[in-house]
Amino acid sequence: MTMPKRDTYTPDSLLAVAVEVFNERGYDGTSMEHLSQAAGISKSSIYHHVRGKEELLHRAVGRALEGLFGILDESGATTGRAVDRLEYVTRRTADVLVEELPYVTLLLRVRGNTGTERWAMERRREFDQRVAALLKAAVAEGDLRADVEPRLATRLLFGMINSVVEWYRPDGRGTAQAEQLADAVVRLAFDGLRIQR
Amino acid sequence: MTMPKRDTYTPDSLLAVAVEVFNERGYDGTSMEHLSQAAGISKSSIYHHVRGKEELLHRAVGRALEGLFGILDESGATTGRAVDRLEYVTRRTADVLVEELPYVTLLLRVRGNTGTERWAMERRREFDQRVAALLKAAVAEGDLRADVEPRLATRLLFGMINSVVEWYRPDGRGTAQAEQLADAVVRLAFDGLRIQR
Repeated sequence: MTMPKRDTYTPDSLLAVAVEVFNERGYDGTSMEHLSQAAGISKSSIYHHVRGKEELLHRAVGRALEGLFGILDESGATTGRAVDRLEYVTRRTADVLVEELPYVTLLLRVRGNTGTERWAMERRREFDQRVAALLKAAVAEGDLRADVEPRLATRLLFGMINSVVEWYRPDGRGTAQAEQLADAVVRLAFDGLRIQR
Repeated sequence: MTMPKRDTYTPDSLLAVAVEVFNERGYDGTSMEHLSQAAGISKSSIYHHVRGKEELLHRAVGRALEGLFGILDESGATTGRAVDRLEYVTRRTADVLVEELPYVTLLLRVRGNTGTERWAMERRREFDQRVAALLKAAVAEGDLRADVEPRLATRLLFGMINSVVEWYRPDGRGTAQAEQLADAVVRLAFDGLRIQR
């Protein structure tokens, strides 16, 4: 057993530890005991910070959702042709995935029965619908292909983007790596693998 | 408690029940007791069919892998330009995902420490590498864009394709639905969302 250490956690640093444990064990499979062990402080010290593990989940997925919804308020997402706004949102979503990797990973894996999990899934669906609406508008404006049903196209687009949490690992190149990823996502999503002649 | 029923299972029908439970509870979270309850037969009846849950996992992911590797031996995957072979493999992978949905879902979720899980992950990596090699060949032949690193492109391609297991639900239209999906995957992966002018 690890000796308890002095509790010097801030809300953010405790959250970072909790998210790591949630992603490793799954939210359901994580007990306060696991969190206490991972943080190296007693359960009662954790209760000094939060009411319980659901509050940690709420803060963690809230942070991911804030990052994602924040994109939709940026000027690149609100002005211009729908196709350009969609491209902007796609690129920025890739950025946020990388910047908030553990938090978005947790958000994407949430499927469960607590109120917080249902809330997170609902908010995620809302984000997807906002993007689907943008995609539909770009089809209507004649910039995106009409031969793929917009909901299906949105799902495949998010399938590509969200897969990033499964395999992305920082390689030490920092923003250069993140930029390369966002470029690749935008190129493939909008123009595909094939050289257009 | 459910009353045990007479054991009329075939290897395939027992496997189908087990895969459903594995996908719902996770392989680690599934005990022989859970399998017994879901199948409605005693644990000893299950042991009459298989040595244990790892054998069921092995058969299940084996079935998914057989479907996927089978594609690579089909003539569409072995003859012609690399770009056409890659397109063929992409389309057929979408088909196999739909045809073998619960088995491929299980395969894609496997990450663990038993020998069978490591074997499945290794075989999956091997499949990905075969496809990555095809993609690289198509870039070398000048048919696919060279400005996205082939390994990254392969990951994003599989990210899009594999996401299908997360949201695809048969809607009763049978092969029409499956064909629509495979068309959409091929169009988006190769030519992107944008109308090429």
